[in-house]
Amino acid sequence: MKKLLPLALLGAALAAQAQQAPKPEQLIKWRQSAYQVLAWNSGRIKANVDGSYNKDEVIKASAAIAAIANSGLGSLFPPGTETGKGWRDTTVKATLFTDAAGVGAAATAFNKEANELARVAQNGDAATVKAQFGALQKTCKSCHDDYRSN
Amino acid sequence: MKKLLPLALLGAALAAQAQQAPKPEQLIKWRQSAYQVLAWNSGRIKANVDGSYNKDEVIKASAAIAAIANSGLGSLFPPGTETGKGWRDTTVKATLFTDAAGVGAAATAFNKEANELARVAQNGDAATVKAQFGALQKTCKSCHDDYRSN
Repeated sequence: MKKLLPLALLGAALAAQAQQAPKPEQLIKWRQSAYQVLAWNSGRIKANVDGSYNKDEVIKASAAIAAIANSGLGSLFPPGTETGKGWRDTTVKATLFTDAAGVGAAATAFNKEANELARVAQNGDAATVKAQFGALQKTCKSCHDDYRSN
Repeated sequence: MKKLLPLALLGAALAAQAQQAPKPEQLIKWRQSAYQVLAWNSGRIKANVDGSYNKDEVIKASAAIAAIANSGLGSLFPPGTETGKGWRDTTVKATLFTDAAGVGAAATAFNKEANELARVAQNGDAATVKAQFGALQKTCKSCHDDYRSN
């Protein structure tokens, strides 16, 4: 005899599934938020390397960037989120969802430079941090050029 | 003779000042974004401790939460941002801007529990992580109850 899932268990299972599969709008909002946090912390580092340098400030900002880079942002770009609105309409290009090799290379470069920035920030040498911040920004720009429509 | 700042230098100085003093709307957008990234990663941890546990996923998510907790979120709540619209109208209560002792204690508790979660995540023991995640969530709720209007 085929057993039916008790209603309570079914409800729990559905709740768990819902939790594990956020809606596209939610995923788009989260990824837009993640990039805003990257922008905030990039701006802080830029202000430090272009102006008065505060080692502790740069350590905090670069650690936040690295942790977000390492967090698995790719999971916020599943099929089905090529279009849609989070905080605002997504600006992702459709090619991000088809160019797996290119996206993988871009993500690897971003992670590498972000982790290296967090590493050199510990030493507090402004010139080294500025050079590495430049290397990181190149990976940002390259990915935006290829996979962001504006 | 009083020297006037050459126009080019003045422009650069103003640009630097503008960079170091983002507008209230920008600060509110960044802080709303930071809390969304915390929500994203909290949801990931909850899904892991309530369901199938993936150690690497929890390490990444808890590291992101800790790095944001340590990043200096307080700088996104300067006087003048009691009201205003980032992605949406801010939901901060005015009391956050006057209750320095309470906010300081809340921030310290949040940072402590977030860093402890990132630490225990390394061991990959789901029960320990679940308990510590509960401790972290209490600090989130407490701060929301006190300083967020909805």
